[in-house]
Amino acid sequence: MLSLLDLLRGIEAGETTPEAALRQAHQAIAARDDELQAFAYVDGSAQAAASGPLRGVAVGLKDIIDTADMPTQMGTPIYAGWRPRADAAIVSLLRRAGATVIGKTATTPLVYLDPTVTRNPRNPAHTPGGSSSGSAAAVGAGLIPLAVGTQTGGSVIRPASFCGVAAVKPSFRLLPTVGVKPFAWTLDTLGLFAATVADVAYALAAVTGREALRIDRRTIAAPRIGVMTQDFAGEPDPDGATALEAAARAAERAGAVVRPVRPSPTLAEAFHAHGPLQNYEARQALAWEYDSHRALLGPLLRQLLDEAQTIPAEAYDDARSVAHRARLALKETFRDVDVLLTYAASGAAPEGLGSTGDSRFNRVWTLMGTPCVNVPGLETERGLPIGVQIVATFGGDSQALAAAAFVEDALRRRP
Amino acid sequence: MLSLLDLLRGIEAGETTPEAALRQAHQAIAARDDELQAFAYVDGSAQAAASGPLRGVAVGLKDIIDTADMPTQMGTPIYAGWRPRADAAIVSLLRRAGATVIGKTATTPLVYLDPTVTRNPRNPAHTPGGSSSGSAAAVGAGLIPLAVGTQTGGSVIRPASFCGVAAVKPSFRLLPTVGVKPFAWTLDTLGLFAATVADVAYALAAVTGREALRIDRRTIAAPRIGVMTQDFAGEPDPDGATALEAAARAAERAGAVVRPVRPSPTLAEAFHAHGPLQNYEARQALAWEYDSHRALLGPLLRQLLDEAQTIPAEAYDDARSVAHRARLALKETFRDVDVLLTYAASGAAPEGLGSTGDSRFNRVWTLMGTPCVNVPGLETERGLPIGVQIVATFGGDSQALAAAAFVEDALRRRP
Repeated sequence: MLSLLDLLRGIEAGETTPEAALRQAHQAIAARDDELQAFAYVDGSAQAAASGPLRGVAVGLKDIIDTADMPTQMGTPIYAGWRPRADAAIVSLLRRAGATVIGKTATTPLVYLDPTVTRNPRNPAHTPGGSSSGSAAAVGAGLIPLAVGTQTGGSVIRPASFCGVAAVKPSFRLLPTVGVKPFAWTLDTLGLFAATVADVAYALAAVTGREALRIDRRTIAAPRIGVMTQDFAGEPDPDGATALEAAARAAERAGAVVRPVRPSPTLAEAFHAHGPLQNYEARQALAWEYDSHRALLGPLLRQLLDEAQTIPAEAYDDARSVAHRARLALKETFRDVDVLLTYAASGAAPEGLGSTGDSRFNRVWTLMGTPCVNVPGLETERGLPIGVQIVATFGGDSQALAAAAFVEDALRRRP
Repeated sequence: MLSLLDLLRGIEAGETTPEAALRQAHQAIAARDDELQAFAYVDGSAQAAASGPLRGVAVGLKDIIDTADMPTQMGTPIYAGWRPRADAAIVSLLRRAGATVIGKTATTPLVYLDPTVTRNPRNPAHTPGGSSSGSAAAVGAGLIPLAVGTQTGGSVIRPASFCGVAAVKPSFRLLPTVGVKPFAWTLDTLGLFAATVADVAYALAAVTGREALRIDRRTIAAPRIGVMTQDFAGEPDPDGATALEAAARAAERAGAVVRPVRPSPTLAEAFHAHGPLQNYEARQALAWEYDSHRALLGPLLRQLLDEAQTIPAEAYDDARSVAHRARLALKETFRDVDVLLTYAASGAAPEGLGSTGDSRFNRVWTLMGTPCVNVPGLETERGLPIGVQIVATFGGDSQALAAAAFVEDALRRRP
């Protein structure tokens, strides 16, 4: 993989140039993407900017993020060849920071569970996860140093875990979603993928103009970590349980205070509220697609929307109210711990491309709006990557990233 | 003006037909809109639907609401001739309910304060208000029975007050904003304009599928009304003060319990937080327009965005945090009263088309996400319409509409 910070250090030191870095990305895509299929569109003419904290950084954008100079096709024939008038806000922010949009990455159709053709960069017989399939795969394969995805259930953290890359889903609306195709507005959150936690932290700082999010120049204090198994979401695969245990032990050995934390009853309620809330909003967000192009929808999305038409307004109101109470209750949980450590996914990437995996260990955090980080560095016995997830309180993006970097480092230094 | 409920009763009784109602709207637009300039685009071929609770209802959409079959030009040359791929969610919901989109109504450029050419239907020498200028004017002139606008500061309630029409800005996200051009995502709220409070309530119920919002078949109990003068926002014009006093007295005579209510200190803080919050989000929401077409922006918007570039992230975070606390505190205020009665605008519509008026008595309610209703029925000594505003607790849309209808009725029955 291509560390964004290593790349920028190379540019700084005169060992490479922004132009050369872009050429390298173009060459890597040309060499490998026929097999990987991480990109839905590549801008062959994309040039490096001369300045900015992300100069020379080729970025891939999930293909539901509007671009004025490239198609935005949402992974569905309904938007085949569609070219928006304006760039999404995140695109302008990336360009202001000097990044170069090299192309659009594959997304599941309208970000639901119908799979893409994208393959896992670590094992092509496995899914890269979804719905930000191409973003995770392109970074995992080392084609580009930075990619942008979105999460409504678990579409940033899960594919990052499956592809062995770092990713951050920041606090709700820290990154603007203007110009990003909505699925469920209470949940839809942009996220960033890069090789390491320090890389995603640097990129997030550069895009938001919040220097305090950087962790590459900091000494990171040992965090107080609460391990939460999210029993309300069921049991993980054995691989998932092993990964969480390994991360907790490594963090403890590195000096962190690690103790189990039980979820509040409201959090469990909120887990169950995610579905009706998401689906009631999706039926409105995708009303035009459903009314005008139902036959062109992916079969899983079509079925979801068919069923969502009858969700009563009261179920939605109740779900919003549960979420509100759970957000308030969650503040209490974070009085005694700096972060939570939990599963990033139920296990490693499933075999085959028929399913993108499930999001049950991600959903409640998307609904809570809390920052989540996938910490890469672990592998299953069969050699597939598997991540663990760090969660902090709303607005605690800096703590989440620092603790994730601490765990990442602890995993590197395992005997 | 054209009452939507009267129209539907006429259709029900066989006195008119949906087709005839559409023809009437087309004729009214053809006869009067050259002078009024409420419409940015009219679909001459728009036909009535045969069924649905809004059959025969011609609706005008503020021209920042995406339509797949009509241009969406945002009141600015930057989007001249622009035609989105999909309808906004609200458009699908309106069509499902049987309404017919007859055209796009004039908006100030990208919904900021630079004025449109639209005239006030009650006096062409005055502004109709903004930014939903055309929506308020088209309903006020009786061209159409229903229009959709948006409010980020006071862009629904203020033009409704200036044009003498009823309007509801429902609880935040009761109406979906998917496909509506964002200005500040924490604030942007869709609203509806119609002749009377019962008309907007009926339309809101039809679009959301929430029958409980209807008030046309209910006996409305006398509400407990708290009169709030919003001293934190400064003094109103004498006309505004007179209107509020008249409405309070009429409501009291009609049996309401009316008493003064003082705002909490947090609410006053929240009033001052609206600006930094809105402007920090606007600089991101309009980043592409600013970076690519700065010279084409309206001068007031250009200046706003120039200044917004330097708002520190901390100011935004503080503003969000103040808003959060004020929303919690506001729940207390509504323990003792059903609704608040306050100014809809600082006074009647200013003379000339150089300014669309100010939003200082609306802003904090947009930030609180509470339902707001403009109650029409009052006039200044010079014969200009002036409204008063009813505010209820978040989610209390039904209470807000019922209390507004009570006050509207009380004003009609004044001696």
